[in-house]
Amino acid sequence: MTDAAHTPAPHSPATDRPTVRLRPKAEARAIRHGFPWVYSDELVLDRRSKSLTPGTIARLEDAERRPLGTVTVNPDSKITARMLDFDAEVEIDHNWLVTRLRAALDLREQLYDAPYYRLVHAEADGLPGVVIDRFGDAAVIQPNAAWADAMIDTLADALAEVTGVTAILKSGSGRARKLEGLDDATTWLRGEVTAPIPVKMNGATYMADLTGGQKTGLFYDQRPNHAFIAGLARGRTVLDVFCHVGGFALAALSQGAVSAVAVDGSGPALELAQQGAEASGHAAAFTTRQGDAFAELEAMAQEGARFDIVICDPPAFAPSKQALEAGLRAYERIARMAAGLVADGGILCVCSCSHAADLTRFRNASARGIGKGGRRAQLIHTGFAGADHPLLPQLAESGYLKSLVFRMTA
Amino acid sequence: MTDAAHTPAPHSPATDRPTVRLRPKAEARAIRHGFPWVYSDELVLDRRSKSLTPGTIARLEDAERRPLGTVTVNPDSKITARMLDFDAEVEIDHNWLVTRLRAALDLREQLYDAPYYRLVHAEADGLPGVVIDRFGDAAVIQPNAAWADAMIDTLADALAEVTGVTAILKSGSGRARKLEGLDDATTWLRGEVTAPIPVKMNGATYMADLTGGQKTGLFYDQRPNHAFIAGLARGRTVLDVFCHVGGFALAALSQGAVSAVAVDGSGPALELAQQGAEASGHAAAFTTRQGDAFAELEAMAQEGARFDIVICDPPAFAPSKQALEAGLRAYERIARMAAGLVADGGILCVCSCSHAADLTRFRNASARGIGKGGRRAQLIHTGFAGADHPLLPQLAESGYLKSLVFRMTA
Repeated sequence: MTDAAHTPAPHSPATDRPTVRLRPKAEARAIRHGFPWVYSDELVLDRRSKSLTPGTIARLEDAERRPLGTVTVNPDSKITARMLDFDAEVEIDHNWLVTRLRAALDLREQLYDAPYYRLVHAEADGLPGVVIDRFGDAAVIQPNAAWADAMIDTLADALAEVTGVTAILKSGSGRARKLEGLDDATTWLRGEVTAPIPVKMNGATYMADLTGGQKTGLFYDQRPNHAFIAGLARGRTVLDVFCHVGGFALAALSQGAVSAVAVDGSGPALELAQQGAEASGHAAAFTTRQGDAFAELEAMAQEGARFDIVICDPPAFAPSKQALEAGLRAYERIARMAAGLVADGGILCVCSCSHAADLTRFRNASARGIGKGGRRAQLIHTGFAGADHPLLPQLAESGYLKSLVFRMTA
Repeated sequence: MTDAAHTPAPHSPATDRPTVRLRPKAEARAIRHGFPWVYSDELVLDRRSKSLTPGTIARLEDAERRPLGTVTVNPDSKITARMLDFDAEVEIDHNWLVTRLRAALDLREQLYDAPYYRLVHAEADGLPGVVIDRFGDAAVIQPNAAWADAMIDTLADALAEVTGVTAILKSGSGRARKLEGLDDATTWLRGEVTAPIPVKMNGATYMADLTGGQKTGLFYDQRPNHAFIAGLARGRTVLDVFCHVGGFALAALSQGAVSAVAVDGSGPALELAQQGAEASGHAAAFTTRQGDAFAELEAMAQEGARFDIVICDPPAFAPSKQALEAGLRAYERIARMAAGLVADGGILCVCSCSHAADLTRFRNASARGIGKGGRRAQLIHTGFAGADHPLLPQLAESGYLKSLVFRMTA
């Protein structure tokens, strides 16, 4: 037995594991019903608990010392314990990781014909703080929680075993890593892929640059919303603002859009979008404009441009509660400016990836913008992230991605 | 000029139209920005206004007598005026109806390859209270507002002109008709179709019985949710509870489900579902169980039955605010019982068509039920009604249909 006063290794065996306990008044029922987090004010935080290394695997008990499960503890975080397993005795090891990864893979293989998807979406896939995107034979792990960072080699082994991927990148770019006291290093754990990877989705080919691109090189979350817009695109002209690597534009072209203009501030993103247009066989119908989106929208309004379909998928304007009001004004402004470029009877798709702006607020801000722009619209579709981005029902309010599709009626 | 003290005909010409006016403190801005309703306490309701025949077409002005638009007035309804057109001088006649119907048709033709859809979805399609479903060469009009009931022949003429339908049924079954003081008669206005109509959706063939079925014989609203479930169905066993004419079950079979059991309380609905299974070529894999859904779920639990995919799409358990708490308990109970029949790793889809139970409340009730049933789940999809059921953004909170797809993780 180790001395409980010592700091144990984060992945010590179940028998040697420290125990953390709920305070007498803390509510264990939510946890028993699947809520995955314990906040600092719900735990007995004595000197011993406070000294635990972030990422330590521990046993969680209620105030009456009944076991609740196996957790990972970070005394420095407001979310002090995250549930790993409702079995308090389970070993968190290679086999455990293999089981979780297999369950995650089963869902994605049921959903998609080809191995291009978000394989692990953190808590909802039973791996708190862990995000894994798969690009065929390559994968990118974001170990955004201390426990996973500490076990990264075991995780990479399990991932290779379950999926057969030969190249694994550890990405340190997640903002959550800072809160967990983790470095921002990005390194290849196995193999290496330097060239952009062609990814087929919705009939288009996208270029994913795993080490050079934004985030993990390609966003899978918008796939069903790309598909919805593409389904309306036959014979239409498209403007894709904040296009990144061409998500909406290339899907629309692949479903028969006659032309697409893609706007982004990032030269590298537009370069990948251009390569994607070429790989998709639609380079002749594809144009890029590099610049600030608001300035480009203004310039196109001055030019008298009109499009059958306009999409605006900006970065999070309201990344925090503090930024909410300013963020909502930015969403309203985007909707107002973009609506002005939509032809009568045409389509406006606006997206938000802001946690803080919930669906109702985002929809109201967008509708206000459309109204202030002198347009009227019907809302024909509300979409969220794809099914490879599952949510724990208990955390579903935090579903960050919202996509609203309006049709202009005047 | 007619004497304004007389009750005018509901569709009198614009020049002869009575005027209704907002009270001095009523807010005209929401209306200018597209809000389509004026409540009784926002209007000057003098003796003349109160005596207007329900459905009268009137001119709406703000308190300073500036025109806001053309409305239909029902002094007996809490929603006293409904916006027909933001042009206060427009004639509400055959041509006006043709324009509105053409705009509605344009969207549906963009969305679907075949003429089977909700053609008009009331306010959002610019025709307040009017619902029209199309079944190929036949259509069902629900004129759930007095103005449309008064103009039903003009509306039927315009509908035939725009779509070419040869059979038009006027359905008086809408609950809103009582509030408008309208009869519940259902009659053929043109042509007649007595046999069930085969409707192809998502690869399946459904049988729509326009005069004998529930509501308008077939619900188009779940089409995208049927498609989502069908996309997961290859090689799986399916249980479709509250199946009506087989919505989820037949779509799943058409996408490769190995078997489907369909449960409903209605013999006629199950008979149509059976005919649909035969028309779809999947009768051998299709079984029906007639009975109370709760009793059937209980019986199947006793039998030890398990399915890869279970769907529960019940009637509105919370049709009003008063019924909300009891309704949420019923949704929780359905989720608990249904979750018990889902195989490990399998799918549970629960739906609500209750206005009063918003998305958050419905999701929480469903998650509670799953938890109380001893299961854990990830939420992989949240769906709403299809794009042929558009919403006014200003009324989007009332989007009634919610479909949640959970995957059982334990």
